[in-house]
Amino acid sequence: MKIYGDAISGNCLKVKWTADTVGHPYSWVPIDIMKGETRTPAYLAKFPQGQVPAVEFEDGRTLGQSNAIIRFLARGSKLLPEDGFAQAKVDEWLFWEQYSHEPYVAVCRFHMKYLGKAKAEREVWRVERGEGALNYIEHQLDGRDWLAGASFTIADVAVVAYTRLADEGGFNLDERPRTRKWIARCESSLRIH
Amino acid sequence: MKIYGDAISGNCLKVKWTADTVGHPYSWVPIDIMKGETRTPAYLAKFPQGQVPAVEFEDGRTLGQSNAIIRFLARGSKLLPEDGFAQAKVDEWLFWEQYSHEPYVAVCRFHMKYLGKAKAEREVWRVERGEGALNYIEHQLDGRDWLAGASFTIADVAVVAYTRLADEGGFNLDERPRTRKWIARCESSLRIH
Repeated sequence: MKIYGDAISGNCLKVKWTADTVGHPYSWVPIDIMKGETRTPAYLAKFPQGQVPAVEFEDGRTLGQSNAIIRFLARGSKLLPEDGFAQAKVDEWLFWEQYSHEPYVAVCRFHMKYLGKAKAEREVWRVERGEGALNYIEHQLDGRDWLAGASFTIADVAVVAYTRLADEGGFNLDERPRTRKWIARCESSLRIH
Repeated sequence: MKIYGDAISGNCLKVKWTADTVGHPYSWVPIDIMKGETRTPAYLAKFPQGQVPAVEFEDGRTLGQSNAIIRFLARGSKLLPEDGFAQAKVDEWLFWEQYSHEPYVAVCRFHMKYLGKAKAEREVWRVERGEGALNYIEHQLDGRDWLAGASFTIADVAVVAYTRLADEGGFNLDERPRTRKWIARCESSLRIH
């Protein structure tokens, strides 16, 4: 499997971490988002969504969307429970992350860290929703070690990817002690620091 | 099963259509988004994400996120293929819809139809991304009847929900003949008009 990704992207790291954790061999094909390498004719011919991460299997089949990829790779591993409803609760987190977290927390980080905007230049509505997403995580971790069920799953992988980088987007994790401890647990499970 | 939903929301209709199609019995609990009924303490106590649609099963278990719900309901039906990779290609569409389509096409519709904004008042960046999403669908339907694989699946259910209403957000489907025919096929499969 080839992973087309940019290491500055939490979405791409989700795929690397999941492949590493389940032991799925891969080669990493670096794609530079900032240089527009996801929008070249050659890239679009292979991946018409024009996004990273995307994967290509040895038989030529391709798959995009970070959470679709990690869900596929995690099948049959400890990262995805077997029970149908337990899987649905994982999916609930995966869709929530892409709709209610990433567009706010990750995009604020992108604006500050990669487009050079100041904290005060962040869009007010985006900051409010990012704060709300981080509050929701802190609330959900009350009395729980992991987001979905009793063990570390791809729900944690997906949500931690940008939550651990939230300070780079001007958010304050010091106010969220349960979240900080959960991030440390996730990083330990993923063997990243 | 109780479906908490608002019939003005395509996300909620996805769940109704899927339950109807697979024959899963339900009662519909009307929630008025415009009156803030997703943000009341009672609603948040049951569904802390504060969103519709959400479902509650007879044993009290709950599930949110439209695409997580329809994926759960569709298991074992014609709406979700059995093969793991075929399911991943469905998931790719589900995540793409929530990240790259709904925030543009559905939100423009909401602004025009429910907040009373004029077409010219739409945010330029949101319109551009909505046009891009609709172009992607038209492109993907070249030589294909359905979005994921050879038959009607929840990928079609998810994407058609707001695509069929795109004109209410100021988008022009007349320029997209393949999309219009696909919408008609979806509506026929769902027995809606």
